[in-house]
Amino acid sequence: MSYTITTTIDAQFDDVVAAVNTALQDEGFGVLSDIDVQTTLNQKLDVDVDRYRILGACNPSLAHDGLAEDPELGALLPCNVIVYETDGGDVVVSAVDPEQLVGIAENPDLDEIAGDVHDRFERVIATVSVEFGTTVESE
Amino acid sequence: MSYTITTTIDAQFDDVVAAVNTALQDEGFGVLSDIDVQTTLNQKLDVDVDRYRILGACNPSLAHDGLAEDPELGALLPCNVIVYETDGGDVVVSAVDPEQLVGIAENPDLDEIAGDVHDRFERVIATVSVEFGTTVESE
Repeated sequence: MSYTITTTIDAQFDDVVAAVNTALQDEGFGVLSDIDVQTTLNQKLDVDVDRYRILGACNPSLAHDGLAEDPELGALLPCNVIVYETDGGDVVVSAVDPEQLVGIAENPDLDEIAGDVHDRFERVIATVSVEFGTTVESE
Repeated sequence: MSYTITTTIDAQFDDVVAAVNTALQDEGFGVLSDIDVQTTLNQKLDVDVDRYRILGACNPSLAHDGLAEDPELGALLPCNVIVYETDGGDVVVSAVDPEQLVGIAENPDLDEIAGDVHDRFERVIATVSVEFGTTVESE
């Protein structure tokens, strides 16, 4: 089973990142971190890799509920949506499956929250796919 | 089984955050994200919660190796170390267990990298514990 909800898009990288940010916002997520993997690895290791961004998405209300259930939950937050280029020039958008991620906490009281985030991430991936005319892959 | 490697410290919050940053640096991690959960939830939801930080730690070389094995791995990165206050006034430092986190990728080629990060995180937690005179909890 894949641990991400994913789609592959034939479009400009920056346009896809912008669309992901908008779709996340529309589903109630703030982007609390935005890591440029390409730049980081180039600066630290002097290597050239394709463009790759890690967006840390957080729905404040759901995060607040989750942390009230389990103060350690922050070790698994925010939930990431990654955007990266492939060798073939496509752009992949993948959201971590929050049900699998939060599953390692083995706390049934978190299941409903994880399920809610999962549904929102599915809609984010679907929205971005539709915007660029891509069919969502099912895995 | 706990999904974090953790210690509880009787010290000032800011001093603990500084010590965690130093210990991470000494183990080859950069802190690529630093989320102030207290401020974020206060701004977004107008609620008051205790101080809580999520530090996103990344060892560039290990991240590069991991992403070469599995381009989707960024959905699980960086590995977080959280620092938060308890109601009793102590400060908890918890690193996500990278073996459990990366375990959801179900890719044996990532085991060695996750094990390496795990060992480094154990030393970070031990270093911070010793600095503040705390015995590391084993769970």
